Amino acid sequence: MTVRTETDRVHLARAIEIAERGRGRVSPNPLVGAVIARDGEPVAEGWHDRLGGPHAEREAIAAAGEADLRGATLYVSLEPCCHRGRTPPCTDAIVEAGIGRVVVGSDDPTEKASGRGLGILRDEGIEVEVAGGELAARARLLNQPFRKHARTGRPWVMFKAAMSLDGKVATESGDSKWISGQASRDVAHRWRAELDAVAVGVGTALADDPRLTARLPDVHRQPRRVVFDSTARLPVSWAGDVTSMLLEGGPHLAGAFLDAGEIDELRLFLAPLVLGGRAARATLEGEGAETIADAVRALTVDCETVGDDLLVSARLREW
Amino acid sequence: MTVRTETDRVHLARAIEIAERGRGRVSPNPLVGAVIARDGEPVAEGWHDRLGGPHAEREAIAAAGEADLRGATLYVSLEPCCHRGRTPPCTDAIVEAGIGRVVVGSDDPTEKASGRGLGILRDEGIEVEVAGGELAARARLLNQPFRKHARTGRPWVMFKAAMSLDGKVATESGDSKWISGQASRDVAHRWRAELDAVAVGVGTALADDPRLTARLPDVHRQPRRVVFDSTARLPVSWAGDVTSMLLEGGPHLAGAFLDAGEIDELRLFLAPLVLGGRAARATLEGEGAETIADAVRALTVDCETVGDDLLVSARLREW
Repeated sequence: MTVRTETDRVHLARAIEIAERGRGRVSPNPLVGAVIARDGEPVAEGWHDRLGGPHAEREAIAAAGEADLRGATLYVSLEPCCHRGRTPPCTDAIVEAGIGRVVVGSDDPTEKASGRGLGILRDEGIEVEVAGGELAARARLLNQPFRKHARTGRPWVMFKAAMSLDGKVATESGDSKWISGQASRDVAHRWRAELDAVAVGVGTALADDPRLTARLPDVHRQPRRVVFDSTARLPVSWAGDVTSMLLEGGPHLAGAFLDAGEIDELRLFLAPLVLGGRAARATLEGEGAETIADAVRALTVDCETVGDDLLVSARLREW
Repeated sequence: MTVRTETDRVHLARAIEIAERGRGRVSPNPLVGAVIARDGEPVAEGWHDRLGGPHAEREAIAAAGEADLRGATLYVSLEPCCHRGRTPPCTDAIVEAGIGRVVVGSDDPTEKASGRGLGILRDEGIEVEVAGGELAARARLLNQPFRKHARTGRPWVMFKAAMSLDGKVATESGDSKWISGQASRDVAHRWRAELDAVAVGVGTALADDPRLTARLPDVHRQPRRVVFDSTARLPVSWAGDVTSMLLEGGPHLAGAFLDAGEIDELRLFLAPLVLGGRAARATLEGEGAETIADAVRALTVDCETVGDDLLVSARLREW
């Protein structure tokens, strides 16, 4: 089902937009935004701002203050929870507020949710609609780490590399400092702050950047540091609540992840350099594809400018 | 010197724009466009349309018909010729037409030109201005093959490759068909029609595409086919009037060109594929740079979408 009117579209898009404000602050919870509207006009909005804090739906209801919400419409980027976790179920709050209609951006694939909240709302006589199309896709994209982790128990993996225009990450002698510019390195530090963990191979951990911290002002929390051996196997000390991982390993580890089908997104900085060299190091090694037909095909590819570099982003999987 | 007024800027920009119309049709001559204006208003325009045909200045003067050009301004993207070649000198035509002022986009670096035409015009009492800044750069970019060939006797080389996002042009087994999409392959065929020659290595020539023709409707002429051995040395049968070459060779030949400093521009199609593989083939091999500081640094990098691919263009040298 697609949302019915342009009014619905605008408010749901807004709910998805403000959900972003929790990025780097709510994991392992999902990012969620909510908007309450009456007669088409927005009354209040809220978002899940920090782990342990109120959910987006409760934030929006609280923000409405004394306003009468009976018969109002709640737009929420993810289906409302119906279980007691760190906070009480949102379905209760929605029913208590007298909301008449709920428009949902995307499903919650965790076992304890997955449509149950919507059933509870319908049982209470609340009209429920679930978006389809482009808005639903946007809502799902908000929470790829949450969704993959909920469905597989494994972290969503973003592989980041800085390479020359001809796809090299180091010269034959191993020199790689610096391929990308300062602006790109700042962006990469922001990703460290947004994802749950940063992963490298043993070699990198011993060599050049053992801290793997997000060296930026205003970082809510630092990522965990995960060190892999030469395979893509999770370390024995693995913490199950890591929903997302920034893979910063070299070509060997990155290739092992690619071979294992565990890279979900690529972020490649293309620096304005040409290295050449038959013995220079490629971005991803491993076994690789045997034929072009066997290659991993990206779902989407985007290109933007970051300082003097290009940033090519490719989503390989959607959860 | 920069052009003096916005009026000058507009007319010179137009002269540069219409020069493009001769692309693929005038080599080894340069692309040239001309606009004649009087009291700030355009009177006529012309461009060099085909090898052996009239030069842009004469086309513009002819297009003016019976209009009185005494005291008018001629905007021309390249300094007017003053020698008799396939056609009589343009300086004669400018003087005869009574043009009062000439605004020039860029110099002609050939030995027989190189400021001589401007001297002749000044001797005839014609005011001459040479543009600087961004317009001059644009005018020079029109004619990189002509300029490099005039200054060095060697062809301007554009290296084109279709690679995966991780910079691979073939799998370990040698499979490379097709990495890029149909839209990209069509664009590459257009380049074949625009450049003087298409170059490959012996291996490629024997293997997959021995014709190397521009398979498109409306192609003015087909490029020459140049086959290199494993080095970047020009074949003995080399024709000196080849001003531009599309290098379509594999990683070995492309690396040899890079090592020799003979790649002037890169055009890399990034297909939405990830190949991986430590034994997959990289875009450019050869010796390569020893350190990042030694790498070839691009002057400009641009990215655009072509079908499902990205096209990354990088200028490595300016002539």
